[in-house]
Amino acid sequence: MARIAFVLGDDFEDSEFRKPYDGLARGHQLDVIGVRAGQTVKGKRGQEHVTIDKAVADVDPHSYDALVIPGGYSPDHLRMDPAMVRFVGEMVRAGKLVAAVCHGPQLLIEADAVRGKTLTSWPSVKTDLVNAGARWVDQEVAVDGPLITSRKPADLPAFTRAIEQHLAGRPEASSRPGTQHAPSPRH
Amino acid sequence: MARIAFVLGDDFEDSEFRKPYDGLARGHQLDVIGVRAGQTVKGKRGQEHVTIDKAVADVDPHSYDALVIPGGYSPDHLRMDPAMVRFVGEMVRAGKLVAAVCHGPQLLIEADAVRGKTLTSWPSVKTDLVNAGARWVDQEVAVDGPLITSRKPADLPAFTRAIEQHLAGRPEASSRPGTQHAPSPRH
Repeated sequence: MARIAFVLGDDFEDSEFRKPYDGLARGHQLDVIGVRAGQTVKGKRGQEHVTIDKAVADVDPHSYDALVIPGGYSPDHLRMDPAMVRFVGEMVRAGKLVAAVCHGPQLLIEADAVRGKTLTSWPSVKTDLVNAGARWVDQEVAVDGPLITSRKPADLPAFTRAIEQHLAGRPEASSRPGTQHAPSPRH
Repeated sequence: MARIAFVLGDDFEDSEFRKPYDGLARGHQLDVIGVRAGQTVKGKRGQEHVTIDKAVADVDPHSYDALVIPGGYSPDHLRMDPAMVRFVGEMVRAGKLVAAVCHGPQLLIEADAVRGKTLTSWPSVKTDLVNAGARWVDQEVAVDGPLITSRKPADLPAFTRAIEQHLAGRPEASSRPGTQHAPSPRH
C-alpha cells in the first residue's frame, strides 16, 4: 500500500481528480493536499466538490510515495503558491512517482522539474513545456522514469494503470495511441 | 480613428473584454475576432456573452491598427488554433499595437513574440514568459514599444489609457504601481 498525495485547487477538471482517486483508493492511502486544510474546492464542471485534507505547508513530502496532479485550471492557481511549488519540487527531486495529466505539468514547470524529461500534456501547455526544457510527445501516457503524464480525460484509464504499475514495481514503457497490448502468448 | 481587433474565446475574464471594449468603442472601430464567425463565446463569470464578428481565418492582419487580447482562460483555448497564432504573430511582426492583459500574453508566447521584450501578466504566467525569453515586470502597465501589457482587472483603467495614448501617437513610459501622476505645475 502506497501513500499518495493528490494536489488540488479550484477549477480542476472533475474527472481528472475523480477517476484516478477512485481507482487508486482501492489499495492505497490517499490525501488531498491544497493551500488550506478544510477548504472545499470545486471542479470546473461543477460535478465535484472536494474538501482539502491537509495544507501543503503542513505536510512532509518524504512521507508520501507518490504525487498526482489533476488538470483543469487548478494547476494555474496552485503554481502561484510557493509552498505548493516547493512540495512538488521536493517530490520530484526525491525521485518519488509524480503523475500529472492535462494542465497538471504547469506545476512541474513552476518547480523547474521538466528539464530534459519526456512528457505529454494538454496541447495548450506544449510550448510552455518545450520552453522549460522538456521533450513533448503526443501519447496517451508518457513514462519517463518516475514521471508519468497524460493529455486529457480520455487518457485516464491508461494514466491510472501506469501509476498502479509503477507502484507495483513494474513501470511499463511509454505506450502509443492505438497500440494494442495483446496478452503474452503462453508457453 | 483606429481599427482594433479583439481576439476572444470561451472563458475570457468578463471585465477584461468589456472595459477596454467599451472604452475604445468611443472613437475607434472594433471587431471581435474568434475561431468561428457568429459563435457566441461566454465570460468565465457568466456576465458577458459576446458574438464573434469575424473568423480569424478570414481576416487580414494588415487591415487592423491594433490588437487587444483579454485574459481569463480564453488565451489558453485560442493558443491551440493555428490561424489565431498566425494572426497574432503577424500583428506583432508588422509592428502593430498589441495589448494583452492577465493570461493574454500566453497567446504571445505561442506566437514566439516575447523574446527580448519587457512585459507583465497575471503572476501564474510569469515563469512561462521568462522561459520564452521575456523580461517580466510587476507593474500595472508595461509599455515596450508597441507592446502594452497589464496584470489583472484592477489594472484596466491604466491598460486602456495606455492603448489610447499609443493610438494618439504619444506612448507613455511604463508606470509603476502606486506611482502618483501629479498634474504638472503651471508656469
